[in-house]
Amino acid sequence: MHILLVLLASMTIASGQAETKAYQDVVDRIVETALAGKTDHRLLKELSALGPRLSGYPGYLAAVSWAESTLKTIGCDRVWRQPVTVPYWRRGPVETAEIVGSAKFTGRSLAIAALGGSPGTAGKPLTGGVIEVNPYTQLEQLDSLVRDRIVFFNEPYDHRILRTFEAYSKAVRQRSEGPVAAAKLGAAAAIVRSVTSRDDNVPHVGGVHRDSLVKPIPAVAIGVTDAEFLSSALQLDPDLQIELNLSCENLGAAQSYNVIGEIRGSIYPDEIIVVGGHLDSWDKGHGAHDDGAGCIQSMAVLGLFKKLKIKPKRTIRCVLFAEEERRQSGANAYAARSDSLKEQHFAAIESDRGAFTPRGFYVESDSAITQGVQKFLPYLQSAGIDWIRKGGSGANISKINNIKAKIGYVPDDQRYFDFHHSDNDTFDTVNPRELALGTAAIAVLTYLISEAGIE
Amino acid sequence: MHILLVLLASMTIASGQAETKAYQDVVDRIVETALAGKTDHRLLKELSALGPRLSGYPGYLAAVSWAESTLKTIGCDRVWRQPVTVPYWRRGPVETAEIVGSAKFTGRSLAIAALGGSPGTAGKPLTGGVIEVNPYTQLEQLDSLVRDRIVFFNEPYDHRILRTFEAYSKAVRQRSEGPVAAAKLGAAAAIVRSVTSRDDNVPHVGGVHRDSLVKPIPAVAIGVTDAEFLSSALQLDPDLQIELNLSCENLGAAQSYNVIGEIRGSIYPDEIIVVGGHLDSWDKGHGAHDDGAGCIQSMAVLGLFKKLKIKPKRTIRCVLFAEEERRQSGANAYAARSDSLKEQHFAAIESDRGAFTPRGFYVESDSAITQGVQKFLPYLQSAGIDWIRKGGSGANISKINNIKAKIGYVPDDQRYFDFHHSDNDTFDTVNPRELALGTAAIAVLTYLISEAGIE
Repeated sequence: MHILLVLLASMTIASGQAETKAYQDVVDRIVETALAGKTDHRLLKELSALGPRLSGYPGYLAAVSWAESTLKTIGCDRVWRQPVTVPYWRRGPVETAEIVGSAKFTGRSLAIAALGGSPGTAGKPLTGGVIEVNPYTQLEQLDSLVRDRIVFFNEPYDHRILRTFEAYSKAVRQRSEGPVAAAKLGAAAAIVRSVTSRDDNVPHVGGVHRDSLVKPIPAVAIGVTDAEFLSSALQLDPDLQIELNLSCENLGAAQSYNVIGEIRGSIYPDEIIVVGGHLDSWDKGHGAHDDGAGCIQSMAVLGLFKKLKIKPKRTIRCVLFAEEERRQSGANAYAARSDSLKEQHFAAIESDRGAFTPRGFYVESDSAITQGVQKFLPYLQSAGIDWIRKGGSGANISKINNIKAKIGYVPDDQRYFDFHHSDNDTFDTVNPRELALGTAAIAVLTYLISEAGIE
Repeated sequence: MHILLVLLASMTIASGQAETKAYQDVVDRIVETALAGKTDHRLLKELSALGPRLSGYPGYLAAVSWAESTLKTIGCDRVWRQPVTVPYWRRGPVETAEIVGSAKFTGRSLAIAALGGSPGTAGKPLTGGVIEVNPYTQLEQLDSLVRDRIVFFNEPYDHRILRTFEAYSKAVRQRSEGPVAAAKLGAAAAIVRSVTSRDDNVPHVGGVHRDSLVKPIPAVAIGVTDAEFLSSALQLDPDLQIELNLSCENLGAAQSYNVIGEIRGSIYPDEIIVVGGHLDSWDKGHGAHDDGAGCIQSMAVLGLFKKLKIKPKRTIRCVLFAEEERRQSGANAYAARSDSLKEQHFAAIESDRGAFTPRGFYVESDSAITQGVQKFLPYLQSAGIDWIRKGGSGANISKINNIKAKIGYVPDDQRYFDFHHSDNDTFDTVNPRELALGTAAIAVLTYLISEAGIE
């Protein structure tokens, strides 16, 4: 080899090593700083105390102000709120289901909660006989038997499936598609077994699909224990009826906001790296895992950069999306605004799978980009990450156009659906360490993408 | 290629594929059966209800009977108890620490619990001035300042360290080595900041080293909150004293037992695969994570084999070890008996890291064997396992001689030291799903080692 080539080659190696070493030093400082403090946990406590963050609720608007203020305190170069129009549905003070017309079971109340967007019962009881559907696919065979009755969807969550998001996707059809499918067949109302991995009696709520040609019917979630009770009761007395009283109502549209804060890139300010979660939640529990944790982690990434005086090459933007839970209004508005401004997103990382111990990252992109992100694995192992794979990123960032890599943070999934969309999802169920580990992992990946690019 | 060679080659492939398919079918059945039921959780509840399983305690002997009976119900070919002599130390009803001799703090009691093997205070208060040691290595510099005083070891657990077992190992020296080191310098007693990842006020106990030449001094763990309080109080009033009253006592040796059950191998009955945990625990909480969970999982592996009518080629032996917590008396007795019987252990898998979501397995063996076990990874991924690495197996099985592979089951480590050795380690903190996932992972590995060997 020519002497100059040797020299050049060795210089490249030396420079590469220096860079690697420099990355590792910063990575270590990011991880240690994230794990040492209790800031994330304190912030999540503050957010949890603001009240339910369901779209249109006062708690959501309080969270908007709180998040703006927190991002300013962190020291972002710029903080703003982006207006978003969201659907406004309100759970009412009246929400009961009681068995009637049964010698054996009359007076037994059931643990229920209205599903998102459900109409109320217009100030009077809705009473009807009950028809049980299990599995969900049985519905279409029942056809006219469903008319004027309360359809009781009782397909259990399948514990045998290893990956809980897969088990959830399978079981959730009865909640998302069931009420409108039942309405099409003329049903009076729908009661849906909670889609959860925990066998307790807490109703787990959620959104339901709409069909502009079908008038929605009242739809509620029922706790697993009471779903099993109701199924047994129906065996003993198939003619029992249920009286539903729901004062929930759809109040049209409301003004809401995405909250955005950013640190401008020092070299490529127009190349944006988004870190984000959704600021809305259901009105059950604190929405601590879903998705308070993801919001806190996204803000904390910027907080770590400021605290450690990291001046990123690319712009790091924290986006707290409005109204993910029903129509992703915030994500749609963000993507539309970015398109109209011709913004160039370099990458986006979403955290919306709860505050559990880190496992990996899913990359929603082509193989070359995925492999580019996979090169960071040795660094990410310092933050407890075991793998980087192709996979879906997240409901909010997946709508962003003109972007290189959309990445989903994947904490362990085994306990998520114990809490999801229910009164179980409270601040005290979040382990401070697991929350902070997520921050560390996302911050390290954000830093590496910003400084090294994706090649 | 010669036609016969082609034929032979294709036959080998076909047979290999059939075997692979057969393994995967059984693996899937093992995982689904483990995850579907609630047996493990029910058994852990039963075990937790028997009372503290500290060596020599009635609760331990009750657990021995319960485990024997459970292994018989499972349908083991053979169940027996192996006599083991264990140290018998008993926590007494009197266990207090109170500040005295201080204008500001007198009367303030501290959350403490005697460490295992600690002598009591002989029916009278032990009162002394306090000297704080932080970091632990500071002790030797203090030298004669320590004499007749109560040494307060206050090195905090380092949250910045990613791997909690590493953070624990670093911080635990003050508990395991501190009391005897202080005694050597003439200290009157030792108070040790709890070695835990949770910042609460629950004392986390544990064993302490002994030195036959040094008379042990009373030694207690103190809750983290009170450790920080005591440190602040000492800044304001360095002359405050502490009055300790402890009625714990060492009662010599007691008769105890390992509990063993096995399914005899159908082809290689003399090649034993051990699955095990330790049946003893500290007397705080239920010892649910440490190591009730490991015992339940080990028994459940045999239960799954019987339920699924798997007739293993090799002998599968569940060993529930006595007295791990202080001297590993059960593990030593088991290894000695195996040596005298010239038993041939093919492999051993230990579960003693809590009931958390599965991450991997550590193989304590040479590279060839480790690679042999690593070949099973694709199957183990069906049970949530991400990796198989070289590493330490476990305190109990590591003593077994004449063995091919010693393997430690590695669940996620991030919450373990929140519970460890304290009143936090209760049955209700064990997630049924995470417990069952451990059973599934260990059962799959046991099955594969039994049927495919390790090559």
